Amino acid sequence: MGNSTHVTVVYQLAADSRNRAEQLAENIRIEQSVEMSVDTVPDSALSSLPDIVSVTPMDENHWKAVISYPVSIIDKDPTQFLNVLYGNISLLDGIKLLDVNDDYFNELLSGPSFGIDGIRKLLKIKNRPLSCTALKPVGLSASELAGRAHQFTRGGIDIIKDDHGLANQSAASFKERVTQCLKAIRSGEQHSGKRTCYFPNITTSPATLLSRFQLAVDLGADGVLLCPQLTGIEAMHEIAKTAHIPIMAHPAFSGPYVIPRNSGFSMELYYGKLWRAFGADSIIYPNAGGRFTFSKETCISLNRQMKTDFCNFKPCFPVPAGGINLHSIPHWIAEYGNDTIFLVGGSLYKQSAGIGQATATFQQMLGNDE
Amino acid sequence: MGNSTHVTVVYQLAADSRNRAEQLAENIRIEQSVEMSVDTVPDSALSSLPDIVSVTPMDENHWKAVISYPVSIIDKDPTQFLNVLYGNISLLDGIKLLDVNDDYFNELLSGPSFGIDGIRKLLKIKNRPLSCTALKPVGLSASELAGRAHQFTRGGIDIIKDDHGLANQSAASFKERVTQCLKAIRSGEQHSGKRTCYFPNITTSPATLLSRFQLAVDLGADGVLLCPQLTGIEAMHEIAKTAHIPIMAHPAFSGPYVIPRNSGFSMELYYGKLWRAFGADSIIYPNAGGRFTFSKETCISLNRQMKTDFCNFKPCFPVPAGGINLHSIPHWIAEYGNDTIFLVGGSLYKQSAGIGQATATFQQMLGNDE
Repeated sequence: MGNSTHVTVVYQLAADSRNRAEQLAENIRIEQSVEMSVDTVPDSALSSLPDIVSVTPMDENHWKAVISYPVSIIDKDPTQFLNVLYGNISLLDGIKLLDVNDDYFNELLSGPSFGIDGIRKLLKIKNRPLSCTALKPVGLSASELAGRAHQFTRGGIDIIKDDHGLANQSAASFKERVTQCLKAIRSGEQHSGKRTCYFPNITTSPATLLSRFQLAVDLGADGVLLCPQLTGIEAMHEIAKTAHIPIMAHPAFSGPYVIPRNSGFSMELYYGKLWRAFGADSIIYPNAGGRFTFSKETCISLNRQMKTDFCNFKPCFPVPAGGINLHSIPHWIAEYGNDTIFLVGGSLYKQSAGIGQATATFQQMLGNDE
Repeated sequence: MGNSTHVTVVYQLAADSRNRAEQLAENIRIEQSVEMSVDTVPDSALSSLPDIVSVTPMDENHWKAVISYPVSIIDKDPTQFLNVLYGNISLLDGIKLLDVNDDYFNELLSGPSFGIDGIRKLLKIKNRPLSCTALKPVGLSASELAGRAHQFTRGGIDIIKDDHGLANQSAASFKERVTQCLKAIRSGEQHSGKRTCYFPNITTSPATLLSRFQLAVDLGADGVLLCPQLTGIEAMHEIAKTAHIPIMAHPAFSGPYVIPRNSGFSMELYYGKLWRAFGADSIIYPNAGGRFTFSKETCISLNRQMKTDFCNFKPCFPVPAGGINLHSIPHWIAEYGNDTIFLVGGSLYKQSAGIGQATATFQQMLGNDE
């Protein structure tokens, strides 16, 4: 701990010549550190200047640049780390962050407190993939939502998360919803004979997020859902550090950081490294083949990144969503392996046999635990 | 107050036919509300469904869609408002938010506590444009930064803001930096015979942001700088509501929401309406003609939007930056008018005559107050 002097960032630069790529790399190292011409930086601040390690061609229009930043300009502030990674250059075109070297994360961030093993322990499921559904729609009363949660539980679902649009609306206030849903779920477990976990959505103002989290813990919630891009990413880390109950991170509002081909971050870096390092025990991502636009290759690579060795952080449970229905589950289990939480929302509500029966079918497709 | 039943959002949709545009509008209204097929929404939640007001052609490849959302799904939670505006659809291509109708903002948010008049009162300057510079670079000690602040103050600068990369680094910890800079500025004012305001950067973890803000207030800072996209946007609103000292909002990390042509938000909506409604008294934006890529027309339109009548919110001071040097100031005053804060950083440090003299020249170009 505490031994890194530099943190290394790998960029993809859109440029049609070495000269332009090198100029862009030079702009980046200045923009993300001293923000002034090198010739005006006083001697006593020269050690704040990053070094350009290399600029190498990737293809005709893209170059890879590696820049090494002195950690003294971050100095243990995780939000300042995000600023150094992408603060001002977020306003420039043609710069995409591909990777950050591992070592420094360990000194700055603590990663998931539960991760895959921790969530499996809550559910007492050792090996098979997990099921998850979304409680919705917004507008139902707390007791109506609780009725649905009861049906999902009787069907044997592993995790029920709130739809991320359920906040503290008067139709089903946070406290009333969590209280009633937990009661309905604990009662449903008596019928299913198995555990079902409830992750209510705590996303709200950064100033009240921690107290809403504490309320969820006090009411007996098994985990929480939050949208780091709305609460501030480090807010997730503050919650993770309490190690009370696991976090499922939702990608709402984060699309612009991962969708553009020539700017933002690679999905693997943004969700798979950054969000994991900032404490997400599980991360929802838009799956290929659904209403979102990520490729199968990208999704497989992201799924792997969340679980691969990374510093001393616990592996993070990938939660593909939005492109999965009951029929496609066997295909995706083959692609992703067992350490995946399959989030199926809409298609369970569509089954004419009812929520409970649809959930039972969903569970069967995940196989037995062993 | 409290009378809106709906909030209306105007989208630009990338689509090559009316049919596709209408389908995309339908996807949006579902994705941003109930997130399930309309035929599976229970009767008791039908009132959560938004209405598509219109879909009309803009040009060959773009359509304008107007969708009206019931405010019951937001229910006074500003972060949930952001989620309804752009949560899940941030993960889709081809959707850009152009505008949101004014009425609802008044019920949800309080806007700037100081605004243009409040900042002018602090400085006792009635009419002329204001000057601002950035204290940097990171890596200097608190006393070195204070020495620079003193020179700027002697030159007569109106506002000194921290570079947004100054956090709580050990080279110049927040408390030490603010203490020494304020002392140096108050002393410099004795020479200049005029007021200089100091806005230290409080951007940090959402969990500690409020206490850092309070520390800035207690130390006697005249305002603060913060990056809402790093702290969580509603964190800015929580600070604005205290009405202690004004906020200068910095666009770090926000580029992906405003740069893409076919996704995100229009600059006018994002900075000019949203950030203003969330409490920014002044907003830094990357000016045309510099190292960033926004057009002159966009910058003029944004500058106007910040100051135009909008709900009962105070006007917000536009702070163009990044494309301004001493020579171009008269040009930009002609474009923007007097209610603008000109942020000149790097080029003041470059002047061979020294910071104090460069600042005095800068001040002269802004003319006399009357």
